[in-house]
Amino acid sequence: MKALMCVPNISEGTDLSVVEKVVDAVRSTPGVMLLDTSSNSDHNRSVITYIGRPEPVVEATRKLTETALALIDMACHRGSHPRQGAVDVVPFIPIRGISDEEAVSIARDFGRHVGDTLGVPIYFYEDAATRPERQSLANVRKGQYEALAEKLKDPEWAPDEGPCQFVPRSGSIQVSSRFPLVAFNINLATTNLEIAQDIAKSIRFINGGFRYVRAIALSLKEAGMVQVSMNLTHYEKTPLPMVAEAVKREAARYGVSVAGTELVGPVPLGAMGQILRYYLQAHDFSMDQIIENSLIGWTGE
Amino acid sequence: MKALMCVPNISEGTDLSVVEKVVDAVRSTPGVMLLDTSSNSDHNRSVITYIGRPEPVVEATRKLTETALALIDMACHRGSHPRQGAVDVVPFIPIRGISDEEAVSIARDFGRHVGDTLGVPIYFYEDAATRPERQSLANVRKGQYEALAEKLKDPEWAPDEGPCQFVPRSGSIQVSSRFPLVAFNINLATTNLEIAQDIAKSIRFINGGFRYVRAIALSLKEAGMVQVSMNLTHYEKTPLPMVAEAVKREAARYGVSVAGTELVGPVPLGAMGQILRYYLQAHDFSMDQIIENSLIGWTGE
Repeated sequence: MKALMCVPNISEGTDLSVVEKVVDAVRSTPGVMLLDTSSNSDHNRSVITYIGRPEPVVEATRKLTETALALIDMACHRGSHPRQGAVDVVPFIPIRGISDEEAVSIARDFGRHVGDTLGVPIYFYEDAATRPERQSLANVRKGQYEALAEKLKDPEWAPDEGPCQFVPRSGSIQVSSRFPLVAFNINLATTNLEIAQDIAKSIRFINGGFRYVRAIALSLKEAGMVQVSMNLTHYEKTPLPMVAEAVKREAARYGVSVAGTELVGPVPLGAMGQILRYYLQAHDFSMDQIIENSLIGWTGE
Repeated sequence: MKALMCVPNISEGTDLSVVEKVVDAVRSTPGVMLLDTSSNSDHNRSVITYIGRPEPVVEATRKLTETALALIDMACHRGSHPRQGAVDVVPFIPIRGISDEEAVSIARDFGRHVGDTLGVPIYFYEDAATRPERQSLANVRKGQYEALAEKLKDPEWAPDEGPCQFVPRSGSIQVSSRFPLVAFNINLATTNLEIAQDIAKSIRFINGGFRYVRAIALSLKEAGMVQVSMNLTHYEKTPLPMVAEAVKREAARYGVSVAGTELVGPVPLGAMGQILRYYLQAHDFSMDQIIENSLIGWTGE
């Protein structure tokens, strides 16, 4: 069974009746399974997660986009999270039986179709980016919605699809495809934030660490701990257990131990297989050995 | 989706045309997925593994039993593996959404039905045992097929179901239910078998080790290593990573390191979750976070 996940972020996290209508566009699409909806009122933003075969997932995403554009007016939007559109980001994530290349072309086809039919500027980012400087979402979204009108006048920032024209109500839609990301936090038994900051710097890509690691340091005031909070953007290429062990070793240099870790949100089965192989030294373990793996896409009829 | 696995062992591993006919009884049952068939001619025995909802799995097992009893004559059976019947063991294994108690009653119902309709003595063992001395398969099968006629005259060894009468062609069927077993081997970077033997003794139940661990030591001549070969009979109660770490520590006492490990055959997803939680110290990890978990029993229609 081929499985594609999509995790659109929409710029509405306060009026939950609007969010409900947008989520209904997913729920009402046959062949799509809604996995999660989470709204944050400070961010004024909601994240919707669903999965299914590629065609129904694309169809659900079209309906979601149409509904959100009809209901959300960016001209009135306030929120603490960076955003550039009513449907701010639409990442397509290949989970099973879909190559990275197929995922890119799903994202590009989606962007072209929505840009044309709904008349809204589209930027491709991450794996779907059409040029290197658009790979980074931070770059694409620089200046945010408020700067978009000016940006669209700059030929460097012509949209990838849709009209090269500011649509005040909708802003732009950022569409991507990417490998499934793993959100992984390591809690350290100390209140010294500097230690977590040093470790975050030593393991993250921008400062010379692992290629597919983004990391920041946080204080967990109530727990009396600090946290190295990470996004592993390609666990196959930068393995999670290797990063976990590196953090542990770095912490040990300060005499600090790991109190626990947290995997946040969805975790791909492949990452679990990797953790098993690594820690057990089970070099030949095959994912086909997992009993439940045979039940995926099978109702028992 | 409820899922039950069944792993009958039949006393034929030489004439593969017979094995094929027996396996066909499983293949031809709608709602059952054949996972594996493996035949060993020295043992003169085959192991058939399949999964599905409880009802179709029981139905497939009935058909398999009927076919095997019609085709296999124990009076002519020779093989190096202990056995007491043409259909030697029938273990039912709850994989998903089935309690241990339900599994016991599935095994007992199956034994009663087959004992009555096919007229063959049935012994229940492991979780399905009716008395403590029948829990151990080695006990139930003591003396093997060759001793069965005498054994059936002893009231202590009256069968649990079916006629108390020796059926030369079929022998007896041993029926059980049990928690899914994990076959786990640890290879040590030494040729000294005594070290593996000492470690096997220190970790296995019969010598005072972990309750749900059976272990033996083997020489891997070609690889120039020795192996601690284990069956973990209840990974939830005796966790695999705890056993792996105990073996590693014991080996270190001899200055020997772990060269690698092998998980042999099917591995339940639950055991993988446990390994992840243990090694990452991810205390709150939930199996619901696994993306593919949501696709089990769902075809995407």
